[in-house]
Amino acid sequence: MRPIQAALFGAALLASAPVAAQGLEVREIGSFHVGGRTATIEGLAPREIVFSPGAPPMRINPNGDFQVEQMYVQYVRLTNPRARLPLLMWHGGGLTGVTWETTPDGRPGWQMFFLRQGHDVYVSDAMERGRSGWARSPEIFAGEPVFRTLGEGWGLFRVGPADGWHSDPAQRRAFADSKFPLAAWNQFGKQSVPRWVTTDAQIQRAYDALVQQVCPCVIMVHSQGGNFGFTAALNAPDKVAALIAVEPSGAPPVGADAAKLKAIPHLVVWGDHMDQPFWQRIRPNIERWQAAIRDAGGKAETLDLPARGLRGNSHMLMMDTNSDEVAGLVQAWIAAQGLMR
Amino acid sequence: MRPIQAALFGAALLASAPVAAQGLEVREIGSFHVGGRTATIEGLAPREIVFSPGAPPMRINPNGDFQVEQMYVQYVRLTNPRARLPLLMWHGGGLTGVTWETTPDGRPGWQMFFLRQGHDVYVSDAMERGRSGWARSPEIFAGEPVFRTLGEGWGLFRVGPADGWHSDPAQRRAFADSKFPLAAWNQFGKQSVPRWVTTDAQIQRAYDALVQQVCPCVIMVHSQGGNFGFTAALNAPDKVAALIAVEPSGAPPVGADAAKLKAIPHLVVWGDHMDQPFWQRIRPNIERWQAAIRDAGGKAETLDLPARGLRGNSHMLMMDTNSDEVAGLVQAWIAAQGLMR
Repeated sequence: MRPIQAALFGAALLASAPVAAQGLEVREIGSFHVGGRTATIEGLAPREIVFSPGAPPMRINPNGDFQVEQMYVQYVRLTNPRARLPLLMWHGGGLTGVTWETTPDGRPGWQMFFLRQGHDVYVSDAMERGRSGWARSPEIFAGEPVFRTLGEGWGLFRVGPADGWHSDPAQRRAFADSKFPLAAWNQFGKQSVPRWVTTDAQIQRAYDALVQQVCPCVIMVHSQGGNFGFTAALNAPDKVAALIAVEPSGAPPVGADAAKLKAIPHLVVWGDHMDQPFWQRIRPNIERWQAAIRDAGGKAETLDLPARGLRGNSHMLMMDTNSDEVAGLVQAWIAAQGLMR
Repeated sequence: MRPIQAALFGAALLASAPVAAQGLEVREIGSFHVGGRTATIEGLAPREIVFSPGAPPMRINPNGDFQVEQMYVQYVRLTNPRARLPLLMWHGGGLTGVTWETTPDGRPGWQMFFLRQGHDVYVSDAMERGRSGWARSPEIFAGEPVFRTLGEGWGLFRVGPADGWHSDPAQRRAFADSKFPLAAWNQFGKQSVPRWVTTDAQIQRAYDALVQQVCPCVIMVHSQGGNFGFTAALNAPDKVAALIAVEPSGAPPVGADAAKLKAIPHLVVWGDHMDQPFWQRIRPNIERWQAAIRDAGGKAETLDLPARGLRGNSHMLMMDTNSDEVAGLVQAWIAAQGLMR
């Protein structure tokens, strides 16, 4: 790992501070769906359903052609972007693009931060989640959906020890230095959506289609989005100008051709309390992939927040109380790659 | 019905035209979840699941506390809104807030139109759909989800006769004057999401919670959203300054106290080809509710597009090729209620 120069980040933070107080000059806000296919379902029995109170019943044939496996993307384009390329923000597992839009305690999210820094921003919902919609299971999505409990993330996302979770907020134990807005934990739970664990190929295809449609670009990924981002770069190395992986949970397999990425600077960002067992197994896999990129002559840097003196950041660091400070460090790295005008 | 004065609409359209070419001064873009509750599930068997390729398997206990029945709301607040109150936009059944964001052929949606007219806009996804997430079924949501086929909307949404649908786009028959962007029908299908037909009470509760949180406001509803909007106004008449129901599919039952709404101007907007049997049954129910409001001394007007010379509009008129023209008529009505500065 090559920790990044503190002086560089400090200067960029000072430079970016006044921007945050201003409004945005927005050219257009809109959305689209990308990718997907038409699938045919046959052999299911018809049903009669009343759709609205007072409306007559309708006979519904559940068979037919369905549009499936598309991905939803929302964009905010600025009148005068300062960034050279659009910024694509890909969320993690069991969540949606809301990850980037807000913090559970109601502060502006990273979408707003990077807009204020001058990026055109594209926030998507992974295939199968949020506004991407989801398809009949198991006919289209194999297996069954997984629902995250309110408590699962407490330990997994390193807000506190796993045994510190309690249904009663008053009895939850967090890390003493936790930067997560603890009182808003249940509000954060409202951002959860079901997921399948059988649909990685379809999710990847939709991300790849997005890259073909809107890139060249800079891609920022979080958690489960990590491997989708690394793989999207492998699948279209000429389309990705830089990749920022925030707490990535997976990486391409041993033997994947990291040399394809040698022209794409990578930054991996880690929060605190990485001594939890799950993350002790995750991180070496990511470091192996970073090493492979570097061995091929590429750039794969690490922003280790505790090593920079920032303590207590969780896996959801874009929601932590110092979220703008962390975003400022990422913005400085983007600027250092020559990606701002 | 009282058709609205053509002269008024014409003047407003002229006044609003130059605005569309300009950018927006945006104060903040963000989102939140509102409403919902914590539900406990017990008695299901644990499972081992690999969440990301290369990540170690995790043992998941599907029982526990879950955050359920919340609603997602995204807002765009302007630096200097010209509207006196925020505009809430509620979509119809089997869809999400994307209804307002774009047209399937990629033109700006009504969200952008009303932002350009100077409204702070709040676009939500009904409880259970899109970024609101959905809960385990049948444990939390009774029954099973309903998936809309690609062809169902062709007749139901009055793009063409029901028997004009065909899987092959070249063989589809639309109404000769249809304003729907026909070549983008499959793209429109990508906006579909599953729905339950057992969750109206939870959907209504979330909308009511939103009204309490962000209103006074103007509410615009579409299709299945119609009855949720009419009922939200009944539940908080002091919070709703006006209600625009675009092709509403339901209304409060006979006996509901329309007198509560006498201070809330209502506008109902209808497209063309209402002679389809389903809509011949829907419309009188809406007209009954409008009459009840008027009988109580209130205002419940109708914007009948064919009567105004606009032919061929579908149920999805915010996506039709003349979507901005229709929006302009609605904007004129809003202005005529004294709701612009």
